[in-house]
Amino acid sequence: MKVKVLQNILDANTQMAQKNQRLLDNHRILALNIMASPGAGKTSLILKTIARLKDKTRIAVIEGDIASTIDADRISDQGVAVVQINTGGGCHLDANMVENALNNLKLNEIDLLFIENVGNLVCPAAFRLGEHKRVVLLSVPEGDDKPIKYPMMFTESEAVVINKTDLMPLLDFDLDAFKRKVIGLNPDVEIFQLSAKTGQGLDPWLSWLEAELKSLRA
Amino acid sequence: MKVKVLQNILDANTQMAQKNQRLLDNHRILALNIMASPGAGKTSLILKTIARLKDKTRIAVIEGDIASTIDADRISDQGVAVVQINTGGGCHLDANMVENALNNLKLNEIDLLFIENVGNLVCPAAFRLGEHKRVVLLSVPEGDDKPIKYPMMFTESEAVVINKTDLMPLLDFDLDAFKRKVIGLNPDVEIFQLSAKTGQGLDPWLSWLEAELKSLRA
Repeated sequence: MKVKVLQNILDANTQMAQKNQRLLDNHRILALNIMASPGAGKTSLILKTIARLKDKTRIAVIEGDIASTIDADRISDQGVAVVQINTGGGCHLDANMVENALNNLKLNEIDLLFIENVGNLVCPAAFRLGEHKRVVLLSVPEGDDKPIKYPMMFTESEAVVINKTDLMPLLDFDLDAFKRKVIGLNPDVEIFQLSAKTGQGLDPWLSWLEAELKSLRA
Repeated sequence: MKVKVLQNILDANTQMAQKNQRLLDNHRILALNIMASPGAGKTSLILKTIARLKDKTRIAVIEGDIASTIDADRISDQGVAVVQINTGGGCHLDANMVENALNNLKLNEIDLLFIENVGNLVCPAAFRLGEHKRVVLLSVPEGDDKPIKYPMMFTESEAVVINKTDLMPLLDFDLDAFKRKVIGLNPDVEIFQLSAKTGQGLDPWLSWLEAELKSLRA
């Protein structure tokens, strides 16, 4: 019975996610669902990407948090449209929350939409939002064993961003082992390694975004 | 309706947690629920504590993970009794899982029980397991804003451990601001700051554990 209820919730969420994606497609908006543990650098990556792309790409952000508007405030300071979702304790965004947020954005003025999920390496993986690509960040201090311990997140994502590479020399992080584990779970995944703090390694990530934007408009 | 179902689940869990705590009390076992984001250093802190206390204290560990036995293997290598719980996707331990694990431990041979929860700064806060103390780890690379974004975890815990202090000089972590936020949420909380990697700052943590063990046996 318990499993059945959960299945119904997931089915309803998937239908709403498909509706969101059709709305985004109609407006030719590329939407990315950004997922990670707390403090892995989701907001920092979004901010750095805004700084580099905002002159040629119209960007908006949906910010998901349990509580507070800290991250939304940081993004709004960059002159980018942002809608805050507070889940009030919920451990992930769902498609219904994102639909409400989309209703509060001027969709005709957006090319690229970041949806920053709640900091959590578990729950967000089970809920589609209507995004075109799912991106999981893994920061170097978290350790290279995370794909084994939290496999669903790495299996379900189209891109993995290894963040905080500036700390790599100080920590026991086996980059090759990490990549092997990720590719073992998800052979077609894109892997980027960068430091959102220093900006090092950002170019391949930006090129990928631009190629995805181009292919959506082709 | 949805809220009511959740409330029933939480009530049933609380009753099972109380049953677990009575069982632990009968055996004079001090049980700690260790919670944190993925990669914050829960296993490392447990391992360091085992190394320092195992000659005078009989320690056992219940390891909670979505998948894998990596952490349980590391602990078993130290000659300590360990039971692995794989939640199979679930984002937190619950009291029922812990009851099953307790049935697989020799309770007459344990003084101190660590229950390492799934790496998650959200869901574990809502589920009591039967523990005497709840401990949340926050690693310095996660940032000092986490109590604002994930308040329940900091409100519900009896102790906060700031881990990876060896990285503090390299990162923008405002220790005073972090402590102020934690104390604002939870004025009576114990706060420790240490590096499980280097061992620096471990003594106050160990003294607290020993005092708690003593008071349980008084």
